Amino acid sequence: MAAGVKTVEGGLAPLRLGVCYYPEQWPEAGWAGDARRMRAMGLSVVRIGEFAWSRIEPEPGRFDWGWLDRAIATLTAAGLQVILGTPTATPPKWLVDAHPDILPCDAQGQPRRFGSRRHYCFSSDTYRRESDRIVTALVARYGEHPAVIAWQTDNEYGCHDTVESFSPAATVAFRAWLERRYRDIDALNTAWGTVFWSGEYRGFAAVDPPAATVTEANPAHRLDWRRFSSDQVVAFNARAAAIIRAGSPGRDVAHNFMGFFTGFDHHAVGRDLDAAGWDSYPLGFLDGGWDDAATKRRFLRQGHPDFAAFHHDLYRGCTPSQRLWVLEQQPGPVNWAAHNPAPLPGMVRLWTWEAWAHGAGLVSYFRWRQAPFGQEQMHAGLLRPDSEDGPAAAEVRAVAAERAAVQVEPAVRAPVALLFSYEAQWVLDIQPQGRGWRALEQVFGWYTALRGLGLDVDIVSPDADLLGYRLIVAPSLPVVSEALAATLAASEAVVLLGPRTASRTADFQLPLGLPRPAFGDALPIRVTRVESLPRGVVEPVEGSGGVERWLEQVEGEIEPSLRLENGAGLVWRHRRLRYVAGWPTPDLLVRIVREAVEEAGLAVLSLPPGLRLRSRGGVRFAFNYEATPIALSAHADVGELLLGSDPLPAGGVAAWRT
Amino acid sequence: MAAGVKTVEGGLAPLRLGVCYYPEQWPEAGWAGDARRMRAMGLSVVRIGEFAWSRIEPEPGRFDWGWLDRAIATLTAAGLQVILGTPTATPPKWLVDAHPDILPCDAQGQPRRFGSRRHYCFSSDTYRRESDRIVTALVARYGEHPAVIAWQTDNEYGCHDTVESFSPAATVAFRAWLERRYRDIDALNTAWGTVFWSGEYRGFAAVDPPAATVTEANPAHRLDWRRFSSDQVVAFNARAAAIIRAGSPGRDVAHNFMGFFTGFDHHAVGRDLDAAGWDSYPLGFLDGGWDDAATKRRFLRQGHPDFAAFHHDLYRGCTPSQRLWVLEQQPGPVNWAAHNPAPLPGMVRLWTWEAWAHGAGLVSYFRWRQAPFGQEQMHAGLLRPDSEDGPAAAEVRAVAAERAAVQVEPAVRAPVALLFSYEAQWVLDIQPQGRGWRALEQVFGWYTALRGLGLDVDIVSPDADLLGYRLIVAPSLPVVSEALAATLAASEAVVLLGPRTASRTADFQLPLGLPRPAFGDALPIRVTRVESLPRGVVEPVEGSGGVERWLEQVEGEIEPSLRLENGAGLVWRHRRLRYVAGWPTPDLLVRIVREAVEEAGLAVLSLPPGLRLRSRGGVRFAFNYEATPIALSAHADVGELLLGSDPLPAGGVAAWRT
Amino acid sequence: MAAGVKTVEGGLAPLRLGVCYYPEQWPEAGWAGDARRMRAMGLSVVRIGEFAWSRIEPEPGRFDWGWLDRAIATLTAAGLQVILGTPTATPPKWLVDAHPDILPCDAQGQPRRFGSRRHYCFSSDTYRRESDRIVTALVARYGEHPAVIAWQTDNEYGCHDTVESFSPAATVAFRAWLERRYRDIDALNTAWGTVFWSGEYRGFAAVDPPAATVTEANPAHRLDWRRFSSDQVVAFNARAAAIIRAGSPGRDVAHNFMGFFTGFDHHAVGRDLDAAGWDSYPLGFLDGGWDDAATKRRFLRQGHPDFAAFHHDLYRGCTPSQRLWVLEQQPGPVNWAAHNPAPLPGMVRLWTWEAWAHGAGLVSYFRWRQAPFGQEQMHAGLLRPDSEDGPAAAEVRAVAAERAAVQVEPAVRAPVALLFSYEAQWVLDIQPQGRGWRALEQVFGWYTALRGLGLDVDIVSPDADLLGYRLIVAPSLPVVSEALAATLAASEAVVLLGPRTASRTADFQLPLGLPRPAFGDALPIRVTRVESLPRGVVEPVEGSGGVERWLEQVEGEIEPSLRLENGAGLVWRHRRLRYVAGWPTPDLLVRIVREAVEEAGLAVLSLPPGLRLRSRGGVRFAFNYEATPIALSAHADVGELLLGSDPLPAGGVAAWRT
Repeated sequence: MAAGVKTVEGGLAPLRLGVCYYPEQWPEAGWAGDARRMRAMGLSVVRIGEFAWSRIEPEPGRFDWGWLDRAIATLTAAGLQVILGTPTATPPKWLVDAHPDILPCDAQGQPRRFGSRRHYCFSSDTYRRESDRIVTALVARYGEHPAVIAWQTDNEYGCHDTVESFSPAATVAFRAWLERRYRDIDALNTAWGTVFWSGEYRGFAAVDPPAATVTEANPAHRLDWRRFSSDQVVAFNARAAAIIRAGSPGRDVAHNFMGFFTGFDHHAVGRDLDAAGWDSYPLGFLDGGWDDAATKRRFLRQGHPDFAAFHHDLYRGCTPSQRLWVLEQQPGPVNWAAHNPAPLPGMVRLWTWEAWAHGAGLVSYFRWRQAPFGQEQMHAGLLRPDSEDGPAAAEVRAVAAERAAVQVEPAVRAPVALLFSYEAQWVLDIQPQGRGWRALEQVFGWYTALRGLGLDVDIVSPDADLLGYRLIVAPSLPVVSEALAATLAASEAVVLLGPRTASRTADFQLPLGLPRPAFGDALPIRVTRVESLPRGVVEPVEGSGGVERWLEQVEGEIEPSLRLENGAGLVWRHRRLRYVAGWPTPDLLVRIVREAVEEAGLAVLSLPPGLRLRSRGGVRFAFNYEATPIALSAHADVGELLLGSDPLPAGGVAAWRT
Repeated sequence: MAAGVKTVEGGLAPLRLGVCYYPEQWPEAGWAGDARRMRAMGLSVVRIGEFAWSRIEPEPGRFDWGWLDRAIATLTAAGLQVILGTPTATPPKWLVDAHPDILPCDAQGQPRRFGSRRHYCFSSDTYRRESDRIVTALVARYGEHPAVIAWQTDNEYGCHDTVESFSPAATVAFRAWLERRYRDIDALNTAWGTVFWSGEYRGFAAVDPPAATVTEANPAHRLDWRRFSSDQVVAFNARAAAIIRAGSPGRDVAHNFMGFFTGFDHHAVGRDLDAAGWDSYPLGFLDGGWDDAATKRRFLRQGHPDFAAFHHDLYRGCTPSQRLWVLEQQPGPVNWAAHNPAPLPGMVRLWTWEAWAHGAGLVSYFRWRQAPFGQEQMHAGLLRPDSEDGPAAAEVRAVAAERAAVQVEPAVRAPVALLFSYEAQWVLDIQPQGRGWRALEQVFGWYTALRGLGLDVDIVSPDADLLGYRLIVAPSLPVVSEALAATLAASEAVVLLGPRTASRTADFQLPLGLPRPAFGDALPIRVTRVESLPRGVVEPVEGSGGVERWLEQVEGEIEPSLRLENGAGLVWRHRRLRYVAGWPTPDLLVRIVREAVEEAGLAVLSLPPGLRLRSRGGVRFAFNYEATPIALSAHADVGELLLGSDPLPAGGVAAWRT
Repeated sequence: MAAGVKTVEGGLAPLRLGVCYYPEQWPEAGWAGDARRMRAMGLSVVRIGEFAWSRIEPEPGRFDWGWLDRAIATLTAAGLQVILGTPTATPPKWLVDAHPDILPCDAQGQPRRFGSRRHYCFSSDTYRRESDRIVTALVARYGEHPAVIAWQTDNEYGCHDTVESFSPAATVAFRAWLERRYRDIDALNTAWGTVFWSGEYRGFAAVDPPAATVTEANPAHRLDWRRFSSDQVVAFNARAAAIIRAGSPGRDVAHNFMGFFTGFDHHAVGRDLDAAGWDSYPLGFLDGGWDDAATKRRFLRQGHPDFAAFHHDLYRGCTPSQRLWVLEQQPGPVNWAAHNPAPLPGMVRLWTWEAWAHGAGLVSYFRWRQAPFGQEQMHAGLLRPDSEDGPAAAEVRAVAAERAAVQVEPAVRAPVALLFSYEAQWVLDIQPQGRGWRALEQVFGWYTALRGLGLDVDIVSPDADLLGYRLIVAPSLPVVSEALAATLAASEAVVLLGPRTASRTADFQLPLGLPRPAFGDALPIRVTRVESLPRGVVEPVEGSGGVERWLEQVEGEIEPSLRLENGAGLVWRHRRLRYVAGWPTPDLLVRIVREAVEEAGLAVLSLPPGLRLRSRGGVRFAFNYEATPIALSAHADVGELLLGSDPLPAGGVAAWRT
């Protein structure tokens, strides 16, 4: 595979549309009609089964395949393909009653109980066996079914704070994990610096999870616990994936990741997946997010213009294949946010096209019909509870009708790489050192600045192949390996590094020589002190803008390229590397990023907050997230439109060949 | 009893005044003096005994009746009558030590411990037996005592979150309750929709309380738990009431309900009571309530002008007799709110007269003398701790002196019925679907709109006889029975229905045909989608005002009678039924309610926020809740004053014959 | 010792400077260099050992003295003296595993676990024995070492909410404590008023800690629990102090108290200490404190101008000797506040001089070098992690160089005594009666008013000798002993009493005759009612200012000397006693205090918020807490400067002989 070119699923193939369906929740008499209507709406894929364990195995060891056989047959008969979910996110009550040790435990060691979902501990050996058993049975039954094109493992790993479990099983597994990592307890003591506060251990059996301590536990202890907990998710997923691969050859294995969730290492889970799926709920995430009230009002029914894009770009980089699916797409109001408005007309179509523009091969709406019962009875579907079309149905039909008009070339990678590390998120979550430092917000802010300049971005692991990128951006990577430091130092790309980069060793220690050695002579500066600042404190910067939340004091053998008004350096540039020693205000961040982009020789636009562009395979798309029209040609060089119109209406999509 | 006319206690009899007294807390030498002073102040009734278990039965099985005999004798000798409380809200320590299973448990299953009050689980068989035993003993001793005119069961059921207990006993009782309700586990599975998230049960013994689940439990599960928990309160009260009726013939049984509390079904408890009592603390409730800061400052020392009225009107409808008592009336600053100001001079008199105007037969102040010890040592009494008169004493004397001047006819019911259902509150609490939806605030807002128009209101159960009302208002009734739907459809009254009405089945499911069928052709609309909106988002409405918090999308075979500026319908009117498809801003709500009131042919005033009117038996009362005088005749047609003056001073009361 | 004169440590001796050092955290090869650099910086004292148990006794009963011997020898060789810490704040894991009963328990009775620090219960007999054992071993080894000049017991008693433990051991000890206090259970029942809510006990064995109750426990029960918990700290410290005194003759025993912490009675602990130490972190405390956002921004990098002074003045009064040490002084950004800015240049020098001006004999910086690992890796030291000088190093050198220039006479006590009682804090914390009443903020506000007038203040226990003071201020003392009342009534000083003074008996009961009897005819008023007011409610006072948060209604045989605009009395003055019946706004408080100061015949200045003065032994110091210069002579009568300049620069210090 030539450098600079990767296959993104879909290629020249048009976008596939799908839907999440729960035949077990509806009278069998209606299945065939549902399937026909799905097909007529332009859907071709149906995700089923992921919460159906109590119907598949209604009592221990007795499987009831009949209904599922018939459901799949009905869908198949209508020309639909099936993504089958393993039902392990919801073990049935009889299983929990027989094996209470499968329940996860909270930080106090109390079991979290049956009655909702995700009531299992990733470290429970019992549950690993039971998961193997049910997945094996499903795969044995449907693994080679011609309509089954893919499998989804479990559902939304980590939802409802379930990555970490403080169970006895997890405690035992954590000790074993530590022993594998360190071999010798003295190595652990050294790595963690347990000499601090007399915390030394005399053996691995003495180490507990970092829970219920009198005050905060050792940060290295906490980081290893996060790593361990993530590894337990990876291992759980890998078992299911292996069973599926063995019994269902040629089918894809996917999982549906969540938005704004960093509880486990998605890159690591992604290594066992053929496609990274995710669940896109732009409105709910806006409501619960960090945006100010004015932004939340402005994009109330659209979501933040960079939210979906960020996750497409992030998850596309999470599997070796770079294949991306939206396994759940919000089609209307949901049930779970603090406030649940309806999407602006057009947004379901917009989100769908945007997913495609960012490389998605499938967009599957959640869900077919609003359920009349259960915890999600207020979650809209494509159909209303009375089976009439909901507002999204027409938008899905529109996408289905117009998708043939937009043909793309196999994709070229984006010119910009943004380095994202889950471990970095954990480090910064464990030790924010200031309430204003929210790790994911910081990364997202840098991504938004790039997107506002009209750039396409690949969000990639620090371990990714970075050859060919023109600009490499690392908003904040506390731990930088020697290999990465060497790569960046030697790169022909412009490299823009954010605060706290290279500020920790892999053992969560301060590098004794301070950050500089990570980059050696490539960036002859050292951070000598950091400050976190409360809301409302802004240190003004020469020219415009300022620094808030976080400010580093830097000593350099070079002169800073941008200074605070008080003379202190903020941006330090040496050859092609730049370091930003603080948290710039949004306007200043754009200014800093723009300079780096221009040095990289990339064309720069200046898009209004609600307008976003994305290119895929020779076609450029424009998306209007505002509730008012935007004059497209005022902001970009627009060609002959394959789709849409100029001005671009509220919630509108346009596309043209570049 | 003729339709349209009900006996309200008191009739032509003047208002009775009482006080809560704790002889066990004071030296016996002072009892007689206290009793004489009570009588001299105009009090005729004394509530005693409800926290005295440890003095009545100082050790297991040994009763010490002497002090209570003498206390009652002392009160009787002074011409006072007695309401005797059963002491079950405070089981003594020796009982808890002997039977730890009487303690209630929190949602984690941990016992809530001795050291304050209400430390018992309604489902504890042990405690039911112990309650029977102590109530039986008390009734045996005093059931036929001539001075004992009534009993109060327990004290403030549910206070301090004690309706729900997650104890082993409650778990067992819940399962039995479910089995009685559903008989067959499949019926439960169907009703709850447990197929969702694989939640199916194979037997009643597998069902737990909806506690400590990983995320929210099934809403039908939660609703049944609330119903069950309420039923346990009802059953506990019924046992005590039965023992009292058997042993204390002719005496009234009452309980003292709390303000702004919907944790159990007061209509159901009320069926076992002769009079509904409640505890009126207007200042504390304002401080902790939902009003904005400006309103809280405006009515700091008066309380919200509709607070006491709302509860009078609500609790009057909670017993078959419609008899109403205020068993505790705030006489000064209290101890338990976040801030505890003193009442404006005049307010204690105002609250007393207002209770009477709303049908109360008794107002009993809490308490006689401020206690020098214990948790409520900062709760004012009529007397100061040093036994001097507190500020309220003079106001009580004033009421006592002037009450003979106001004679009323037997009451006629109000022209307006507001339908209030505890179950509706639970449904909306369990599933607000938006943080802005606070169920009780919504009802109270509609009540306030009616009161601002000068109307008298009966707050009644949806099961009440609605014949004769001119206007029936249901601010929000998610579950509407077929019978109620038929009654409303056939009613000659104008019917005004608020949002979410008829949006759920009794099993907490969406009616598959959507709301319309509940009213059939009587209201040919269907709600097709709902939105909850964050603070600050207001959708403007034609003319004036807007919709905030909640907005429904409606399809109708009729035209809306009021639209949003964007054209969507907000009020849907068909013959005499109207449906309001959102949460109007307060000004818009008044406009909508006023139109319905005018259609009903009722006279309408436009009262300022601090002025309230109430009629009883041919006399109209006016109450000035402002801290400044109000020109009464500018707002109402005032006759010759039996009481008060015009302008009405701050905290003033006026009355005239209509 | 003549009245009015006390020996304050230091006398004519110059200020000693020290540092906290952890040899066990650094390679032994670097110790000698560290020691030389300390000495070169002007430091003479090193605090070591307080978290080193796991290195001193790496396994049960096996002591490793070698490293500590060598560390002390290395320090000694460089001319440094040692303060040795007992390592009991961090029992090692092997000890916790062998004796889990040493863990403290939370209010639910759950153990708080190993993994940070302070994981022990003061009531654990096991831990008392283990503490004795390790302290005895340390003292045996180093008690007579010539370099060891002092001992620090444990570290920051009570940090992380560890005064109270709800363990089985604490429960047993509490019962025994109660039995000693009351002897007879009836005495306890009477004292607590347990007749309220049927709370009577039949024996001491029935009494539990006031935890996990359904609603608040009896306030007397809670107060005794606080007293008991404090006594457990006192007893724990006393055991260690006794062992040290026996084995290390002539050495001082100190403890490092914390800022803004009132969890135990520091006066009582102080009786077993030779010097009161404390840990001064002005920036962290500002961030977490009650100041408004503007004040927090103004003093972001300086801390509140009265914070350090308040604690110097408070802790100086906590030992019989009145000796004061700063055992930890912030030298840069810390790790533990919500936001962690760096000190303004000059502040480390300012804080050091200010400590000296307030009587400190030692300022010891925390810590020598920033640690690269552990929970405090983001806590700055005098050295950076790379061993280069941090910004504070130069300021320490500056103090060391200039200290000889400032010679003082033995100190005279301040003219103003502010009465401070830990028990008063507990009473007011247990029963604030209004959310706005924050006990420590109230005291601090009165202290600030005095300091803004340029006065020196001694903060003393109500039991202290008050002879010789010109003004005695008691911001709020709910419990006033007869002896104190008599002292104040007979005092020749002006006495200014704040609200709630004398409002409770020692048993947390209302004095039945109301406050007046405490002072008898000396102050013929009685408080008849109190109000707590929400934020934003201000009752205006004649002239200027107002009352907020708290307002008392007073009856007096005298006329008030200051009234609210509505005529109610606020300040009541009788001869030399004054009583303030509310919480004045800050401007009004200054006005009230100023009048009392003037009556006392003391000179009064009017300092801007950032300028503070302090005299010691004939020298007056000025401190500029602003980030801008202040014209010193505009505010005070400045003599020839021994130190500093006028205008005084930001963060500057000046001194002159008076």
